[in-house]
Amino acid sequence: MLQIFSEFFGTAILILLGDGVCAAVNLKKSKAEASGWIVIAMGWATAVTIAVYFSGFMGPAHLNPAVTIGNAVAGNLEWNLVLPFIIAQVLGGIVGAGLVWAMYLPHWAETKDQGAILGTFATGPAIRHYPANLLSEIIGTFVLVFGLLAMTQHQFADGVNPMAVGVLILAIGLSLGGATGYAINPARDLGPRIAHQLLPIAGKGPSDWAYSWVPVVGPVIGAVIAAGVFGLIV
Amino acid sequence: MLQIFSEFFGTAILILLGDGVCAAVNLKKSKAEASGWIVIAMGWATAVTIAVYFSGFMGPAHLNPAVTIGNAVAGNLEWNLVLPFIIAQVLGGIVGAGLVWAMYLPHWAETKDQGAILGTFATGPAIRHYPANLLSEIIGTFVLVFGLLAMTQHQFADGVNPMAVGVLILAIGLSLGGATGYAINPARDLGPRIAHQLLPIAGKGPSDWAYSWVPVVGPVIGAVIAAGVFGLIV
Amino acid sequence: MLQIFSEFFGTAILILLGDGVCAAVNLKKSKAEASGWIVIAMGWATAVTIAVYFSGFMGPAHLNPAVTIGNAVAGNLEWNLVLPFIIAQVLGGIVGAGLVWAMYLPHWAETKDQGAILGTFATGPAIRHYPANLLSEIIGTFVLVFGLLAMTQHQFADGVNPMAVGVLILAIGLSLGGATGYAINPARDLGPRIAHQLLPIAGKGPSDWAYSWVPVVGPVIGAVIAAGVFGLIV
Amino acid sequence: MLQIFSEFFGTAILILLGDGVCAAVNLKKSKAEASGWIVIAMGWATAVTIAVYFSGFMGPAHLNPAVTIGNAVAGNLEWNLVLPFIIAQVLGGIVGAGLVWAMYLPHWAETKDQGAILGTFATGPAIRHYPANLLSEIIGTFVLVFGLLAMTQHQFADGVNPMAVGVLILAIGLSLGGATGYAINPARDLGPRIAHQLLPIAGKGPSDWAYSWVPVVGPVIGAVIAAGVFGLIV
Repeated sequence: MLQIFSEFFGTAILILLGDGVCAAVNLKKSKAEASGWIVIAMGWATAVTIAVYFSGFMGPAHLNPAVTIGNAVAGNLEWNLVLPFIIAQVLGGIVGAGLVWAMYLPHWAETKDQGAILGTFATGPAIRHYPANLLSEIIGTFVLVFGLLAMTQHQFADGVNPMAVGVLILAIGLSLGGATGYAINPARDLGPRIAHQLLPIAGKGPSDWAYSWVPVVGPVIGAVIAAGVFGLIV
Repeated sequence: MLQIFSEFFGTAILILLGDGVCAAVNLKKSKAEASGWIVIAMGWATAVTIAVYFSGFMGPAHLNPAVTIGNAVAGNLEWNLVLPFIIAQVLGGIVGAGLVWAMYLPHWAETKDQGAILGTFATGPAIRHYPANLLSEIIGTFVLVFGLLAMTQHQFADGVNPMAVGVLILAIGLSLGGATGYAINPARDLGPRIAHQLLPIAGKGPSDWAYSWVPVVGPVIGAVIAAGVFGLIV
Repeated sequence: MLQIFSEFFGTAILILLGDGVCAAVNLKKSKAEASGWIVIAMGWATAVTIAVYFSGFMGPAHLNPAVTIGNAVAGNLEWNLVLPFIIAQVLGGIVGAGLVWAMYLPHWAETKDQGAILGTFATGPAIRHYPANLLSEIIGTFVLVFGLLAMTQHQFADGVNPMAVGVLILAIGLSLGGATGYAINPARDLGPRIAHQLLPIAGKGPSDWAYSWVPVVGPVIGAVIAAGVFGLIV
Repeated sequence: MLQIFSEFFGTAILILLGDGVCAAVNLKKSKAEASGWIVIAMGWATAVTIAVYFSGFMGPAHLNPAVTIGNAVAGNLEWNLVLPFIIAQVLGGIVGAGLVWAMYLPHWAETKDQGAILGTFATGPAIRHYPANLLSEIIGTFVLVFGLLAMTQHQFADGVNPMAVGVLILAIGLSLGGATGYAINPARDLGPRIAHQLLPIAGKGPSDWAYSWVPVVGPVIGAVIAAGVFGLIV
């Protein structure tokens, strides 16, 4: 039970910080307005590191359905925990996005670009091209999940491991994020997209549900491939 | 006694470095002028890491009344040390801000924007909206204090811990700093604001005392909630 | 055999991430378009760190013919492994570059600058001046290989070492990359240049084979000098 | 004897990388041209970390006369090594700067700003004001030397310590570098200034010897104060 709460709580913090950096960069009059990709990429990287510190002493800190499925495929997680974990993660994503909405409350009405508002919550393609977009999410998540599995083969102090995970997220963001904004996590995209749909955000436009399957399906495929390849090697 | 000196000394270094990076970015003719949010956020993050190295071998290195109160609530600090710690922290903040004033001495007269000068010392809202501003400081400090408490559940080498704390500050700054400039520390705001009021800074304007309660009250609320939630979990 | 696969696999990931960050910054409509040198330098630094995690539990993770030759000179690798390692590394470079091409597929046609497209794959001189360009690659690779050898004299946890290697790459990129784009690795340049030649990239120009000897010869010279100097000292 | 070589070699690498990042950012047509303060500050920070890896297995890796004097005052170094160390450090600074000149050879003639060329070698004041400039160097070096001494009170793995030193340099650069460019090291300024005077650099102007005492005297004062204060505390 604590493990399931851990997934909810950690994912909420992950999205509070991750969507928070998108808000900080995208929203008008923010002190970090237009501060660029290095802020986005370091923001998400440190968000994951901190979310792992928050939840990692209570559970495995997957914070990502693709990681949960990848670990189940790799034999590191019982399958009956998969669905509860995923539900907790998506709920955490909704709550984290709601907190971002509340703390940046006066900035939404100042921001006239509906795409910038949606982009604060969910990911979207730089150029809409479903096969390439899907491949981008598959490759990004392959790197994520194989990287996490590979790190289990190296020795870390307990407190250092989340920093290495942050470096992994930073690498993916800097290098593999340009085409689709690197969801690499179905809960990271779906949770905030639901929040965007439900919340009374000033000046928001549509939630682009037509794209929403890409950051769900791509990460799951990437994670399964990663777990499979890792299993062949080890 | 050494512990109280440690809080004074560490907070003075924290504000020397933290307000220093604000000066470096805000002040005209500085070599780092207008170098952006990544410099601000990394400047404050490394400021905290270094301040913990400076003071952490003499005491607990809270350097923040909210952290002190949070630790008292969590049972990690005797209550009779709370007030001396807070006084030492605020005095340290005043001294640190004074050093920044002295070392950037010829730059104040070059800087015509009174808001930029005040913003070098104390925090302020991107958009003045007290409920949202207060919430921003509550959430930021919740993440800070829960994060520090969560790190006590992970194993670190003594010398690595301040770096993890720096990552925590970096995450908060990048993601949660856009709305209010993330005081998340009453001494960080109040000490330099007093220095701004008292020092003969060329071209300064008013010290905006109307806002000054937000970065005091918000962090205390956030810290108490964090300590309470952590207590429920552990 | 696993060691040779490790070189192939690790170099493929290295180039996927490293050429990936070049694509993210260089290509039109990328979300990271024009985000600057800090993104390039941190992208390659974290690319190397992650590639070492991916391959370092299967082999020595050279991922670079210059490092392989340097280690053979220094007596850390059997000479009969040198050629298989180099072939695996170059093949990995080709595959990694191909993945970058596929995942950024719709962006090539949007990018009208042939130099930007080639620069996403292979390195090139800021100012063509073969002696200075060669010296730049010699010095950069000397720092790389001596640095790697020097790190063997310091004590690291297994999981921390790749992060120190990342710092080394970051230093080289920030400081020694301005003149030639710091190949410092024949496979990093030759593999993607072959891919650029072979792939049907929309809007590509010539592959500049006239320059291609510099990032092969320079790194080998730099590595041999580094191994020699290190051998004299230790 | 190896210790003295270590100071020469380490300082040469430090200046190769440190002046290298100044060249990368300042010089026309460099791939990192105008990439800003974050690149400068991270460049020098990683330069110090790497220089410590290069030299730290052969000696104490001061790489800085102020650190050498501070350690002598603190009782950590025999006084008869002080002068040889300083000579080795200044010679290292000259050699490192010479390498930067050679590897960026075609870029000097492209760069028409004599101040940018001098600024690639030596430091200078943002606003010439000797008392404030001196104070800036005193404070910066106080933080450096006290920080290094404080780190001796924390436990590190041998290989992690240079990374913490890099964080210290990063903090100083980001926060305390805006006024004078943070020499905080007499050899870092004097060695390259001598190189600037002696080398046939295309388009160079005068070497500003009128300022040159500040980055020598300031760091020595700051280091002695730091060692004295640290001695009082410990």
